[in-house]
Amino acid sequence: MTTGVKAVVFSYVVHLLGIVGAVMVVVWCIQFRGGLAWEATNKSLIFNIHPVLILIGLIVIGGEAIISYKALTLKKEVKKLIHLVLHGVALVLGIVGIYAAFKYHNESNIANLYSLHSWLGMGIIVLYGIQWIYGFVVFFFPGGTPAIRRGSLPWHVIVGLLAYVLAVGNAALGFLEKLTFLENSGLAKYGSEAFLVNFTAVVTVLFGVFVVLTVLSEAPPEDENSYSAL
Amino acid sequence: MTTGVKAVVFSYVVHLLGIVGAVMVVVWCIQFRGGLAWEATNKSLIFNIHPVLILIGLIVIGGEAIISYKALTLKKEVKKLIHLVLHGVALVLGIVGIYAAFKYHNESNIANLYSLHSWLGMGIIVLYGIQWIYGFVVFFFPGGTPAIRRGSLPWHVIVGLLAYVLAVGNAALGFLEKLTFLENSGLAKYGSEAFLVNFTAVVTVLFGVFVVLTVLSEAPPEDENSYSAL
Repeated sequence: MTTGVKAVVFSYVVHLLGIVGAVMVVVWCIQFRGGLAWEATNKSLIFNIHPVLILIGLIVIGGEAIISYKALTLKKEVKKLIHLVLHGVALVLGIVGIYAAFKYHNESNIANLYSLHSWLGMGIIVLYGIQWIYGFVVFFFPGGTPAIRRGSLPWHVIVGLLAYVLAVGNAALGFLEKLTFLENSGLAKYGSEAFLVNFTAVVTVLFGVFVVLTVLSEAPPEDENSYSAL
Repeated sequence: MTTGVKAVVFSYVVHLLGIVGAVMVVVWCIQFRGGLAWEATNKSLIFNIHPVLILIGLIVIGGEAIISYKALTLKKEVKKLIHLVLHGVALVLGIVGIYAAFKYHNESNIANLYSLHSWLGMGIIVLYGIQWIYGFVVFFFPGGTPAIRRGSLPWHVIVGLLAYVLAVGNAALGFLEKLTFLENSGLAKYGSEAFLVNFTAVVTVLFGVFVVLTVLSEAPPEDENSYSAL
């Protein structure tokens, strides 16, 4: 299942949407929501860390990690290292981002883990972590046997893309949930902040779509063995 | 990109999850939300048509349409007809389901089209409709030239799966949005209805995951030419 298009073309769209989405979420949290803080009497500033780290970390850096094999014209071993390191950064930022949401809840006496967003989020971060550890052990160090690598690669790609698509969908859930809370507290449904949040979510979804399209497209010629199982 | 597993195995999970999800959404809307009605003084009964038709129509019947090529051991032409008819039914139920949401809003003086769920929903139903019409014209009647069919098939599959994954994600958004409204009106966050709605959303997401896994798996042997472009 391939698009027949050169992956690099789609990867430019990924980079552009990633920058736009990152700027939008930062503008939202700083200009409209008062900024970010790890310790604060205004507990909302602690929450604001959550969307910023999840979007820039898990979604944008995670998406760049996924497309590294298809977007870059480097040696396979270098791309593997980039893939591993970017996913590691995405995972750590994702975990800190989730911790910020719990910290905000706990310091504001808000219940934890009652919403679909939180349930899916816990499942996704665990799946993401398992994927990273499995990838590290089997494809990097100490490395599995050739038979294990060959048998694992399609599942590594499919489960990884599954976790990623779920993460993008769950980011959309998060934007909708937070905006619904704000609108229930009086924020204008057709106001500038509502449009900013909804368009950030739309950019996030489009980013995910173009990450998947990049994966389904043709790698640069010098790179034809990278995703040999695809 | 294939799982190496026989598609029929995953398709049984799809059927099971589809039945479970359909029962859950019906139980929710009838037992907890008072039932369904096209005309009613209690306008919530009009809204209830929306999740029932979207989940059973667009998601479950649409998912069964997608996997028909991989799950059934019938002649290719019969499977194509099943694919076409099931998607047609899914599309019509989806349109009526969306109309019910507008009808509920209009008769309750609630604003239309301000939420991410509604924005994505409009985009998805348009994409779904375009896909169906394109599929009908190119692959059924009058039918495109062999070159057009060959060139179109990978894109028909990719855009179709994209629209479907977006529909599943948007169903999750819808469950979360409605439940957030209900919780803001006093529904218990850890009560039985909240759990029912969240688990219905989880079943919906899992249904979508297994539809995609079925598509990425091996068709029955007598059927090897069906998805020749995959």
